[in-house]
Amino acid sequence: MGEKKVLCIGLVCLDIINVVEKYPEEDTDSRCLSQRWQRGGNASNSCTVLSLLGAPCAFMGSLAPGPVADFISNDFQLYQIDISLLVEHAQCSFPASVVISNVTSGSRTILHMNRNLPDVSADDFSRVDLKQYKWIHWEGRNAEEQIKMIQQVEEFNQTTPDANRITMSVEIEKTRDSLYQLFQYGDVVFVSKDVAKSFGFNSATSALKGLYSRVRKGTVLICAWAEEGADALGPDGKVIHSDAFPPEALVDTLGAGDTFNASVIYTLSNGGSLQEALTFGCQIAGRKCGVHGYDGIVPTRA
Amino acid sequence: MGEKKVLCIGLVCLDIINVVEKYPEEDTDSRCLSQRWQRGGNASNSCTVLSLLGAPCAFMGSLAPGPVADFISNDFQLYQIDISLLVEHAQCSFPASVVISNVTSGSRTILHMNRNLPDVSADDFSRVDLKQYKWIHWEGRNAEEQIKMIQQVEEFNQTTPDANRITMSVEIEKTRDSLYQLFQYGDVVFVSKDVAKSFGFNSATSALKGLYSRVRKGTVLICAWAEEGADALGPDGKVIHSDAFPPEALVDTLGAGDTFNASVIYTLSNGGSLQEALTFGCQIAGRKCGVHGYDGIVPTRA
Repeated sequence: MGEKKVLCIGLVCLDIINVVEKYPEEDTDSRCLSQRWQRGGNASNSCTVLSLLGAPCAFMGSLAPGPVADFISNDFQLYQIDISLLVEHAQCSFPASVVISNVTSGSRTILHMNRNLPDVSADDFSRVDLKQYKWIHWEGRNAEEQIKMIQQVEEFNQTTPDANRITMSVEIEKTRDSLYQLFQYGDVVFVSKDVAKSFGFNSATSALKGLYSRVRKGTVLICAWAEEGADALGPDGKVIHSDAFPPEALVDTLGAGDTFNASVIYTLSNGGSLQEALTFGCQIAGRKCGVHGYDGIVPTRA
Repeated sequence: MGEKKVLCIGLVCLDIINVVEKYPEEDTDSRCLSQRWQRGGNASNSCTVLSLLGAPCAFMGSLAPGPVADFISNDFQLYQIDISLLVEHAQCSFPASVVISNVTSGSRTILHMNRNLPDVSADDFSRVDLKQYKWIHWEGRNAEEQIKMIQQVEEFNQTTPDANRITMSVEIEKTRDSLYQLFQYGDVVFVSKDVAKSFGFNSATSALKGLYSRVRKGTVLICAWAEEGADALGPDGKVIHSDAFPPEALVDTLGAGDTFNASVIYTLSNGGSLQEALTFGCQIAGRKCGVHGYDGIVPTRA
C-alpha cells in the first residue's frame, strides 16, 4: 500500500460557467464572452486542490451515468483523484449549475438544478477500506447519515494504533438547521461566514467564540471571512488569525472556500501547525481568486 | 435506394433549458424548477419535426467531439435522422446555449456561446451524393459558401430528369446583411418576422410585397408572423394567408419557427399546395407552442 490518502465526501456537479460583459436582461438574446464547463461541488473542488498540492486523495460521492458523468470522470482522472468510491445511480439525472459570471461587476449569479441524486449513505460508506486513509473530510449535506459514517470511523480509530488513526473534518457551509448537529463531530470543523452571520456574528473571531460551545472538547473550529482572512480556535482557547492574501486582480472567486479548506487539511495532515495551516489556506485561496479555475494556484508546480 | 430524403443544412447546438419561477436577480443563488438538455439549432430542429411527420430526412452540420457530441448524436438517432453527413472538427468546442425560461411571465432569455466551430463548406458539400435527396434546405449562415452549394445543386438539376430534380429552400432568419444575398436563391425562401421588421415592414403581407423584388422569378417567398399566422407569395402574384392556431396554453415557443418551416417543406415535398402547406405549417407550429420540446406535435402518431 502506498501513501495514505485524504478522502473527501460530498457533492460533485457540473458548473457551466458563462462569462458575460453585462448581466442579461430578461427576455433578450445575448452572447457570452466565453463559456466553460468545470467540475464543481465543494468536496470535488477540495480534491482538485489537494491533488494540485501533491496530496494523494480520493473523492466519494454520487454520480448519474451519461455524457456529463463521462466529462466529470475524465476530469477527476486528469487531476489524478481516486474515484473508485463513486456511487452510480442509473435512474437519476446529473446536477448541473449554470453560473453567469459578469466580468464588469465581478458578480456571479448561480442557477442550481433541482437534483434527484441521493447523497452517499452510511451503508455505502460501510464498504470503504478505512485503512487507506489518513484524513476524511465531509461536506455537510445529509447530516444524519454523515454522523453514522463518522461513528464508523470513531469505532475504527478505537481499535487502531494511534499512528494509523484517521483525522476527521466537517464543513458546515449552508445555513440549514439540520447541518448544525455536525458541530459536535470531527477533529476540525469549518464553519462558513454565511452560517456565522446567520447566527448573528459579524466577524470570524466573534463567531468562533460564540460557536465554540457547540463543538466537542478538543475540536479545532475554523472560520474564513473572505477579504478579512481566517481565524481558528482550538482547545487551548487562543484565537489564531491569518490575513487574506488578495490577488492583484480578482478574476474568479468560485471555489475559493473549497481551496481554503483543502489547503488547511493539506497542512495539518502533513504535520503543520494550526497557524501554518491558516496562513497557507489564505495564501492558496487568494491565488485561486486571481486565476480562472484551479490550474496555477500552486506556485512551485511547473 | 429507399425513399428520397429531405436534407437540412445548418446548425446543431445544445440548448440547456432552465425553467424558473422568477427571473434571477444578478449576484444571487436560486434554484430551477427543472432543467433539461435539448438538441437545438434551426436546421437540427426542422429535422426533428420532419422525422416526426414521417419524412425520411438527413442533417448536415458541424460537430466537435466530446460528451456533448455523444448526447447530440444519440438524440439524432432517437429521432431516426440520418447524420452520415456530420462534419467533425476535433479542435473545436461544441456550441451550447443557456436558456432561462420563466414559467410565470413566459419570457425566454438566451445566452449564446461564442462558437469557434466552422460551418459546413462548399467543399464538404461537394462530397454529398445528391441523388439521395428530393429537397435540400439551408439555414442561412455562411451565405457565400451556401450559394456555392446551391450552384452545385443547380448544375445537378440541369443534368437530371425533371422527376429527380432537387427542390431547394433557404431560411433568412437573422438580421445580418450578408444573409440577404440568399433572397436570390432557392425555390422557396423563408424570411423571418425579425428580418421583415428590420426592413421596415409591419406585417407579413407588406413584407412579401416589398421584398418580392429581391427574389428570382418563380420563387415562393414565405413569411410567418407569430400569432398573426403566415403569408406566402408565389410567381402568380397572389398573397396567400393562414391564420395561426394558438394552443390553449402557451408552454414553449422555442423552435416554433423551425417547426413551421419543416411542416411547409413536408407538405410541398409531398405534392401539397401552397395553401395546404401554409395552413399545415401554422397548425403544427401552434401545437408545438403547447408542448415542451417536440414530442406530441403530430396528433395522429401514437
